[in-house]
Amino acid sequence: MAHHREEIVRVLKAAQNVLLITHVHPDGDALGSQIAMANILEAAGKNVFMYGEDPVSHLYDFLPLCDKIENMLPDLRGFDCAIALDCGDSFRMGHAKDDFLTVHPFLVVDHHAGHKDFGDLRWVAPGMSSTGEMVFELAADLGYDIPYEAAYCLYAAIVSDTGSFKYSSTTADTFRIAGELVAKGVKPASVAGKLFDNFSVNRLHLMRLVLDSLELYADERLAIIWASREMFRQTSTTQADAESFINYPRSVQSVKVAAFIKETEKGMIAVSMRSKGTNYDVAQIAAFFGGGGHRNAAGFKLPDTDIDKVRELLLGKVLPMVQN
Amino acid sequence: MAHHREEIVRVLKAAQNVLLITHVHPDGDALGSQIAMANILEAAGKNVFMYGEDPVSHLYDFLPLCDKIENMLPDLRGFDCAIALDCGDSFRMGHAKDDFLTVHPFLVVDHHAGHKDFGDLRWVAPGMSSTGEMVFELAADLGYDIPYEAAYCLYAAIVSDTGSFKYSSTTADTFRIAGELVAKGVKPASVAGKLFDNFSVNRLHLMRLVLDSLELYADERLAIIWASREMFRQTSTTQADAESFINYPRSVQSVKVAAFIKETEKGMIAVSMRSKGTNYDVAQIAAFFGGGGHRNAAGFKLPDTDIDKVRELLLGKVLPMVQN
Repeated sequence: MAHHREEIVRVLKAAQNVLLITHVHPDGDALGSQIAMANILEAAGKNVFMYGEDPVSHLYDFLPLCDKIENMLPDLRGFDCAIALDCGDSFRMGHAKDDFLTVHPFLVVDHHAGHKDFGDLRWVAPGMSSTGEMVFELAADLGYDIPYEAAYCLYAAIVSDTGSFKYSSTTADTFRIAGELVAKGVKPASVAGKLFDNFSVNRLHLMRLVLDSLELYADERLAIIWASREMFRQTSTTQADAESFINYPRSVQSVKVAAFIKETEKGMIAVSMRSKGTNYDVAQIAAFFGGGGHRNAAGFKLPDTDIDKVRELLLGKVLPMVQN
Repeated sequence: MAHHREEIVRVLKAAQNVLLITHVHPDGDALGSQIAMANILEAAGKNVFMYGEDPVSHLYDFLPLCDKIENMLPDLRGFDCAIALDCGDSFRMGHAKDDFLTVHPFLVVDHHAGHKDFGDLRWVAPGMSSTGEMVFELAADLGYDIPYEAAYCLYAAIVSDTGSFKYSSTTADTFRIAGELVAKGVKPASVAGKLFDNFSVNRLHLMRLVLDSLELYADERLAIIWASREMFRQTSTTQADAESFINYPRSVQSVKVAAFIKETEKGMIAVSMRSKGTNYDVAQIAAFFGGGGHRNAAGFKLPDTDIDKVRELLLGKVLPMVQN
């Protein structure tokens, strides 16, 4: 595994002007890591520039300093280095990826299992729960203080990427780091409230409709839920509001594979899948349909189709798997 | 606050035969603490007896050693001491409480804020997330090893009583202890799976019905959901299956107070309430109706009534509170 951790620390220490990038459609770990790293470097006297192609989703706009993320490309000649956080592949940096890669040295800090190497110096640690955990360790290596805002963002990053310490990526180190962040004044209930108690009433209405769509197959080992454009329209919600709904069918004890079929635009269908344990590899099914992901969490998109057709296609591939 | 922690450690160290009690309708913290304490003492060469008035709910029967909990009263003359874990009041020990209190010294270890003193020696620590956290500290004070089964039960106790590190009772110490338990081999994802991914399909059906009952008042600051006996019957579920449902209306951003009205038997109505922050004291409302609890989580029961009448009574008390 790529491991230029020490070199990355040396480069960051020497740099005065740092460009920070994360992935498109940034989630809690992406934004939390980016903001925290920038805040830590800035507190150490450096100039930082946070770039974000997409606006910060309303689910994460409670993160301090997220309004400092710019979506205008800066003059790239002015940076001593660039760092991509939480990007498993260069294309995840978005449209400007080739521009970014003209900055040298280009540093990469990521925890994705299927990481595809890019940049000049890389620290890739798939054993770590989150890129937030990695930024915490970098700050320790750098000997830099973690200001309160950074601590808050790192805690949010870790909680977000571990489902509040529920995923198998959670280690003893994850807890040690969370404890140190809380000792810096971060309030766990406050962050959890922002990350998880953020339903709008509309979102709850959408959830009721989506739960009503539940279908079970193969002795309740396969669960499918779906959301049509009409359901989003009826409840004045968007796809982002449906984000975590797949966890409900997944939380049924008997269910081994859960799928969520979403009509995102007219004729465009996105499918998310979750599975439990090592016997049900949904990444394989996603790959068959041109998508990707991990063994227990994967997805794909199909154009020019509808929910019923996709359900049939999906059943054709998943039923044989869960019936084994 | 009662603080005989050192005396309790001395008594436990000297004792050879220990009776362990927890509260009726035991939850994850009650069972986890009881089993872990027994397992730790037994590994140190003592004889232990775990008493439980109620059977272990199917939600917690994954806890190792829970089948060692007996519901036959033992000969109480044979014990060198008794310890009540997670009991905020002597009556919480159930029907045999007066019998138990004939054992001396009678030790009490509890973290409830409204704890009412009983027994001979007490350690009451409302600042701690869970009685599980207290048992971990007692093991350290005793200098006793924490076997794997005990570590598993303590981790489950902590996760259970903090909603997986989401509640405000979660401290830096909670994370330190969780980290040490994980270092002993406990797998966070496995425990979380047992505690949270334990829906039956029937339970999910009940959830759909209950979510359909959602009513909002006072600019969406008050949410009420309800479950009738008919809903339980229709989905072949029991009251235990509805346990965490109050969290859904609570998770709506605008909601300050959430209430769940349950028809538990014909004419018997149980109400659970949750509130956010310091401005909405649901314990006060519960007390008015003869119930109890904490500022942010309380409940009461009313006989000889129905859901509609209780909703009216509740609105009469809660609406003025949330309209302020």
